[in-house]
Amino acid sequence: MAIHWLLILICCIGLHFSSTKYTPDWESLDSRPLPKWYDETKFGIFITWGVFAVPSFSSEWFWPHWKSKHPNHDIVNFMKRNYRPDFTYADFAADFTAEFFDPDEWADIFKASGAGYVVFTTKHGGGFPNWPSSHSFNWNAKSVGPNRDIVGDLAEAIRNRTDIKFGTYYCLSEWFNPLYLKDRNSNFTTTDFVKTKAMPDLYELVSKYKPEIVWADTVDNLGPASYWTSKEFLAWLYNESPVKDTVVTNDRWCQDCFCKHGGFKTCSDRFNPGVLQKFKWENCMTIDTHSWGYRRNSNIDAYLSVHDIISTFASTISCGGNMLMNVGPTKEGKIMPIFEERLRQFGQWLKVNGEGVYSTVPWSHQKDTVTKNIWYTKRKMESEGTVVYAFLLSWPTDALLNLGAPIPSQQTEVSMLGYPDKFIWKAGPGGQGIHVTIPIIPWNKLPCEWAWVLKLTHISN
Amino acid sequence: MAIHWLLILICCIGLHFSSTKYTPDWESLDSRPLPKWYDETKFGIFITWGVFAVPSFSSEWFWPHWKSKHPNHDIVNFMKRNYRPDFTYADFAADFTAEFFDPDEWADIFKASGAGYVVFTTKHGGGFPNWPSSHSFNWNAKSVGPNRDIVGDLAEAIRNRTDIKFGTYYCLSEWFNPLYLKDRNSNFTTTDFVKTKAMPDLYELVSKYKPEIVWADTVDNLGPASYWTSKEFLAWLYNESPVKDTVVTNDRWCQDCFCKHGGFKTCSDRFNPGVLQKFKWENCMTIDTHSWGYRRNSNIDAYLSVHDIISTFASTISCGGNMLMNVGPTKEGKIMPIFEERLRQFGQWLKVNGEGVYSTVPWSHQKDTVTKNIWYTKRKMESEGTVVYAFLLSWPTDALLNLGAPIPSQQTEVSMLGYPDKFIWKAGPGGQGIHVTIPIIPWNKLPCEWAWVLKLTHISN
Amino acid sequence: MAIHWLLILICCIGLHFSSTKYTPDWESLDSRPLPKWYDETKFGIFITWGVFAVPSFSSEWFWPHWKSKHPNHDIVNFMKRNYRPDFTYADFAADFTAEFFDPDEWADIFKASGAGYVVFTTKHGGGFPNWPSSHSFNWNAKSVGPNRDIVGDLAEAIRNRTDIKFGTYYCLSEWFNPLYLKDRNSNFTTTDFVKTKAMPDLYELVSKYKPEIVWADTVDNLGPASYWTSKEFLAWLYNESPVKDTVVTNDRWCQDCFCKHGGFKTCSDRFNPGVLQKFKWENCMTIDTHSWGYRRNSNIDAYLSVHDIISTFASTISCGGNMLMNVGPTKEGKIMPIFEERLRQFGQWLKVNGEGVYSTVPWSHQKDTVTKNIWYTKRKMESEGTVVYAFLLSWPTDALLNLGAPIPSQQTEVSMLGYPDKFIWKAGPGGQGIHVTIPIIPWNKLPCEWAWVLKLTHISN
Amino acid sequence: MAIHWLLILICCIGLHFSSTKYTPDWESLDSRPLPKWYDETKFGIFITWGVFAVPSFSSEWFWPHWKSKHPNHDIVNFMKRNYRPDFTYADFAADFTAEFFDPDEWADIFKASGAGYVVFTTKHGGGFPNWPSSHSFNWNAKSVGPNRDIVGDLAEAIRNRTDIKFGTYYCLSEWFNPLYLKDRNSNFTTTDFVKTKAMPDLYELVSKYKPEIVWADTVDNLGPASYWTSKEFLAWLYNESPVKDTVVTNDRWCQDCFCKHGGFKTCSDRFNPGVLQKFKWENCMTIDTHSWGYRRNSNIDAYLSVHDIISTFASTISCGGNMLMNVGPTKEGKIMPIFEERLRQFGQWLKVNGEGVYSTVPWSHQKDTVTKNIWYTKRKMESEGTVVYAFLLSWPTDALLNLGAPIPSQQTEVSMLGYPDKFIWKAGPGGQGIHVTIPIIPWNKLPCEWAWVLKLTHISN
Repeated sequence: MAIHWLLILICCIGLHFSSTKYTPDWESLDSRPLPKWYDETKFGIFITWGVFAVPSFSSEWFWPHWKSKHPNHDIVNFMKRNYRPDFTYADFAADFTAEFFDPDEWADIFKASGAGYVVFTTKHGGGFPNWPSSHSFNWNAKSVGPNRDIVGDLAEAIRNRTDIKFGTYYCLSEWFNPLYLKDRNSNFTTTDFVKTKAMPDLYELVSKYKPEIVWADTVDNLGPASYWTSKEFLAWLYNESPVKDTVVTNDRWCQDCFCKHGGFKTCSDRFNPGVLQKFKWENCMTIDTHSWGYRRNSNIDAYLSVHDIISTFASTISCGGNMLMNVGPTKEGKIMPIFEERLRQFGQWLKVNGEGVYSTVPWSHQKDTVTKNIWYTKRKMESEGTVVYAFLLSWPTDALLNLGAPIPSQQTEVSMLGYPDKFIWKAGPGGQGIHVTIPIIPWNKLPCEWAWVLKLTHISN
Repeated sequence: MAIHWLLILICCIGLHFSSTKYTPDWESLDSRPLPKWYDETKFGIFITWGVFAVPSFSSEWFWPHWKSKHPNHDIVNFMKRNYRPDFTYADFAADFTAEFFDPDEWADIFKASGAGYVVFTTKHGGGFPNWPSSHSFNWNAKSVGPNRDIVGDLAEAIRNRTDIKFGTYYCLSEWFNPLYLKDRNSNFTTTDFVKTKAMPDLYELVSKYKPEIVWADTVDNLGPASYWTSKEFLAWLYNESPVKDTVVTNDRWCQDCFCKHGGFKTCSDRFNPGVLQKFKWENCMTIDTHSWGYRRNSNIDAYLSVHDIISTFASTISCGGNMLMNVGPTKEGKIMPIFEERLRQFGQWLKVNGEGVYSTVPWSHQKDTVTKNIWYTKRKMESEGTVVYAFLLSWPTDALLNLGAPIPSQQTEVSMLGYPDKFIWKAGPGGQGIHVTIPIIPWNKLPCEWAWVLKLTHISN
Repeated sequence: MAIHWLLILICCIGLHFSSTKYTPDWESLDSRPLPKWYDETKFGIFITWGVFAVPSFSSEWFWPHWKSKHPNHDIVNFMKRNYRPDFTYADFAADFTAEFFDPDEWADIFKASGAGYVVFTTKHGGGFPNWPSSHSFNWNAKSVGPNRDIVGDLAEAIRNRTDIKFGTYYCLSEWFNPLYLKDRNSNFTTTDFVKTKAMPDLYELVSKYKPEIVWADTVDNLGPASYWTSKEFLAWLYNESPVKDTVVTNDRWCQDCFCKHGGFKTCSDRFNPGVLQKFKWENCMTIDTHSWGYRRNSNIDAYLSVHDIISTFASTISCGGNMLMNVGPTKEGKIMPIFEERLRQFGQWLKVNGEGVYSTVPWSHQKDTVTKNIWYTKRKMESEGTVVYAFLLSWPTDALLNLGAPIPSQQTEVSMLGYPDKFIWKAGPGGQGIHVTIPIIPWNKLPCEWAWVLKLTHISN
Repeated sequence: MAIHWLLILICCIGLHFSSTKYTPDWESLDSRPLPKWYDETKFGIFITWGVFAVPSFSSEWFWPHWKSKHPNHDIVNFMKRNYRPDFTYADFAADFTAEFFDPDEWADIFKASGAGYVVFTTKHGGGFPNWPSSHSFNWNAKSVGPNRDIVGDLAEAIRNRTDIKFGTYYCLSEWFNPLYLKDRNSNFTTTDFVKTKAMPDLYELVSKYKPEIVWADTVDNLGPASYWTSKEFLAWLYNESPVKDTVVTNDRWCQDCFCKHGGFKTCSDRFNPGVLQKFKWENCMTIDTHSWGYRRNSNIDAYLSVHDIISTFASTISCGGNMLMNVGPTKEGKIMPIFEERLRQFGQWLKVNGEGVYSTVPWSHQKDTVTKNIWYTKRKMESEGTVVYAFLLSWPTDALLNLGAPIPSQQTEVSMLGYPDKFIWKAGPGGQGIHVTIPIIPWNKLPCEWAWVLKLTHISN
């Protein structure tokens, strides 16, 4: 008898999953709940790599900025000084050697950073696939340059060595692909590009590498969903693909899609609104503030410090976002020491403060109402009630820290993540707010550098 | 009244041309008469150029011979000794620099050679288009390497400076294109490659460059006409294309086509049957007997001498063929001096002997029946009746040259092209054959080197 | 009257300088006092740059480790995987492009680091001069690769933008120079190399660039001073050269010289004895602990942290040494962000703590006798008597810091550099030692990170 | 008794050789008889190879013509179009790959050409030694580019496979060597270059490779013999070197030497005076009339035809010269087919006509006095008396060839080398001259192409 019920239960669960059939319209597609893992992990690493890592100058937009009607003069001069006049962008590819690319090493660094997922550029706007795409003959990482399935090798290393989810960035449009330009010039009434290149690629990518994030992009934010057949693709992705139950997508699926349709919202690069959003979103940002691709001639002043990173992170997760932080590897395939140090130090910080980060949700307040540079997250815990985490981006300058937002209860306790002792506090006037007495902790007794997280238990609001 | 007739005549002619509509079946397509210019010119130059000019080793089949299951060991060793292990074929392309490519110079050499047409490799089996194809993103001569529309520049130079017809060689299949391999593996039941690559390319080529020869090829002689949509393409080419009235094609349009369907027949490389064919055919051969593409390490013993070339030519045109003689330019874009010398010397010979070549037709006999190394052509002339030309590939060793094939008439005169005096002759026994007394001409009085053409007028057979 | 005496005094000083003639023997040469600026500056930057920056793998000893009898297998494999078999070390030079080398930028970074001098590799063991040496035809940075007088351009930038002294590293011997090998094989009885290469180079270098440090080296520590004519060169350097009054040299002038003769002593790489030396010495060390030349494939764990650097520095200057800290630029000419960050952060620290560093001298004690990780320097000040500086490499874990070495006086005051308030202290038992009460300073009130310097005035010992 | 005399004779000869000691003055040096083999062989091959084979443009003077005050604009434009602005001449060296250099193949071609000696550029004006010179660190063919002792490998192949003598071309001065420029600027009062580079190289070359020709050159015809120590070197070469008895030298040993001192005279490039010289001389000329180094962009019109070569040769040997004919290999190490064909065809001609060439001497007349384009050589033969060879550079246009110079005897016979029958002749008026009846020989009965040699026996003058 029991067995029968179990079978029925299994069938129901099966049915539940298999019976949800999304139809290729936004109403249906947007109704799909985001798989929980995405929100819980909070932090992903974005890797921008491709042929632009060869000139490794200016940014990953090297090609369009060089060849646009109003070209970037630094790039034009760089080319004049360093290459023969007829040198083309595609000529760079043979020098994309990737000789030091060690995906195991990358995986270990990512793991140490505390990231929950990785999003890898399988193809950027230059149209160079980092896997042996069937639709880009002799213009892909297996055929020219690395002579390697970079996407496959990285996916395998990450899955073998970590619990990190592997996601794929794929840029739908291509700056200079003549088929795309023709379709665009026809106002997207012709569909040669999307039918012979973009969509075949995407189906191939998902089928072959089973990414848990399908991160779409366009370089020009053009083309209606009907052109891109985005809805049909997403319906397939959600209904039939090998990752249908776990995959997460973003919102850059068509020119009207940004911040509107799809999975989590990215809205714009470095999107960080500072206020709570109604949707799950992602702050896609980069450690080298001038570029996503690696720049051989970068200086340290362009790089975010660990403090900058944590500040951005705290404001992001407080407002319901995830942070997708970018690093650009060199053409040889290394993640430079400066990036490695940032990632490892951020990981050290997360090790101490992960309780306030992973699987938390936004609280009713995002920033504190009284004291600057304090952001909040929340967690419900059986033993401690509503727990609110206050991220202090600078150490309090006064002995008394005035938190205006929380309403404490009698059971409320205040502590600092990674620090053994409880803090003394008292309620603000009328029971609103918590005034924390900051103990004078010597430098070497602090649990971490850069920023500190106060844990407030049994909060009433 | 006269005007009416004239109008009617014009209409008829017009109708004749415009009304002939070929249908996409071989019966109809094969019924199209070859435009006359092709047979009249007799001699064309074939140019094999592409990325294989960079390794410039072994042959233009460098890539498949390197990467086949049973690789060519010379190539494997060449790569080991000269390149890093991960070097790919596509990596060569950036070094296809073409810095000395001067299409005007090429055109002048071709003109001096006496050629009536040129056939240029717009795309060989490696799939590298020598023009900015819309269907081969970043794998074409405008995007990588030469940074130039080689096809367009050459077509323009040839048309500006000569009366030579410009033709395009296009290899339908591609050794390593994954789309082609997929179609082939499906036994040509899928059609991705032909629909997104081969046919779009061909239509683009014809529309853009208006070639007067469309010379198709395959690298593997596979794929039925239904796969390649060859019949539909040819119907379009003959009915609607910008070159519909003048274009000539060959026979390599499908796996059952060789020597059967299309325009002139090529049958096989270096096809030279030695006997008259029922169809118009072409002997496609190459000066470097080991390769069509240029070889940097070639030795002189691989090259045909001018005498070899003329011998091949005489036997070819005697049997109803045209000769398409190949040269392979260097990666820098030069036609090497050894090729230039052959072409110019052959052109000098043709200048003397062109009367026996251009616009002639095969005679009833191709070779002489008695004396070796003599080939015939024929021309009808009002003043001289049936004129037969005898190509002597070696100078007669006896004072009396016995031609067994011709039946002379009383009016018959025997002379040598380029030589002022008539030769003494008498009829053979029973009036069959001509016995020519070869005058002892000092070396410096001969009109040319290598081979000589006797002109026999008023021949009765 | 007073004026007369002053004039006489000035004359005498003048005479003193101009009349001291050093003779080419060690007794005389070693008697020369080191120009004061060297000891006062304490900290210099060493830059290791050359053709080895092209492979940028393993270390600046790439060449000998590759071609030695017992080669480094990593290097051998690196070459196999990435280059054709016949590739030579000299073949790398054409790719030493230095396209981003901006000596002004380097000078600014060095200035920010607080360094008092720079020592630049004008020629390393590979024999590649970074200036247009007259004795190394087509194997120098002006003739191949950078096409630039790197030494001259850097010297000029440093002198134009900073007060930093410019010094030249010059490696006397060369691993693979056949003339050197011949001399060495002759047991230094032949002198072709030293006469036609090493010494002409050195005289040229000094005459042309007027370096204030002439930092000699050998790669094998071989060759007597009589071979190298070191004594003659130094006599010239001290008596006649354009830098005779200000120049400083080191001790690597012959196989018996290390730690014995010349100017300051370097003894060995990373020389850091931990106890006071009788001579002025230099700790020549490198941020990338695995290499002096840049490594493209380095990981962060090989790099010294700022704390490591300060620890090394404190122990070095306490014992009478200067620290010469190395960075290796890339082949493109950049000082990587990780190096730039280290240099700038060390400079920030020096800005706060320079009083305890610059122009100080070793004290009677180098380390504290009771508490670990504390190093001392000393300075005589008119107003504050003997001032002793205690470098705390870690923050005291107890509220009471027990300094065992100093004997305080009644006037003694204890403070921390960069911190406004005096510290409370009391004398140890019997007046020996100082017990400092460490105030509990919040993290954000500390004057610096990494290490802190206590200032103890009016110390009696 | 007889034996005793023989022994004495042998001793005397031995003494003769070993006792002749040349002193380092021109009178003595110039008195040395040229070893006979040189004059007897008549024809040598010159090979111009070096780093200039990489740009392979303009000529082997690429570097000075590029960097002179009045640069060659073609070269300047070539560099602008094809290289980054900072590219240097020395940067070319890494691309001097020589991957197809097969000295055995070269030796076989040289043998087929009929040459008696080879002169190879061991170092041209760019100063790049094609052997591992001890005096040119990292600027020689073993250290950069070929990674090979080209001189040694070629010498060995030639000696193993042929009887051809191996000679070395060595350019004393170097366009851009700073030591040479210094010496030159000092009006040759300093001697750094000659002492540390030029002479050490020359002694090393002779000792190591034992060349039978030491062919000196300068690029600027400057420097007195006292500067170059030419006389001392030649005295050593003639008295003590390993080739002292067989070696031949030329005349370019100092700025006053050309056409005056040394061994055979070269006087100027392409020296071909057309009249008998009092000294043994050499016509150093090149098949590509525009260049000695290989040019990738050459056209056939720049190349001498075989007829041109034979014409030059006939006039040269008639007037007492040898012909040294140059070919320039490619950077890959191949002798291009056009050169190979010229060499082999000239060799075929020499095979037929060698009797009139090898070991002959000039006759009293060089050209004929009546008929143009006829040159003479002579040989004494026991059986045929004074034999005179008349080189006919074009086939006689008349049946009667009028030779004005020879005075026939009764025994005189006239024939053509390679042709079986004697020619009919009669003496000219008064016995002066020979009127030869030219038989009408059919083309295919001629013994050779291009030029023919009449043999006149028992000539009286």
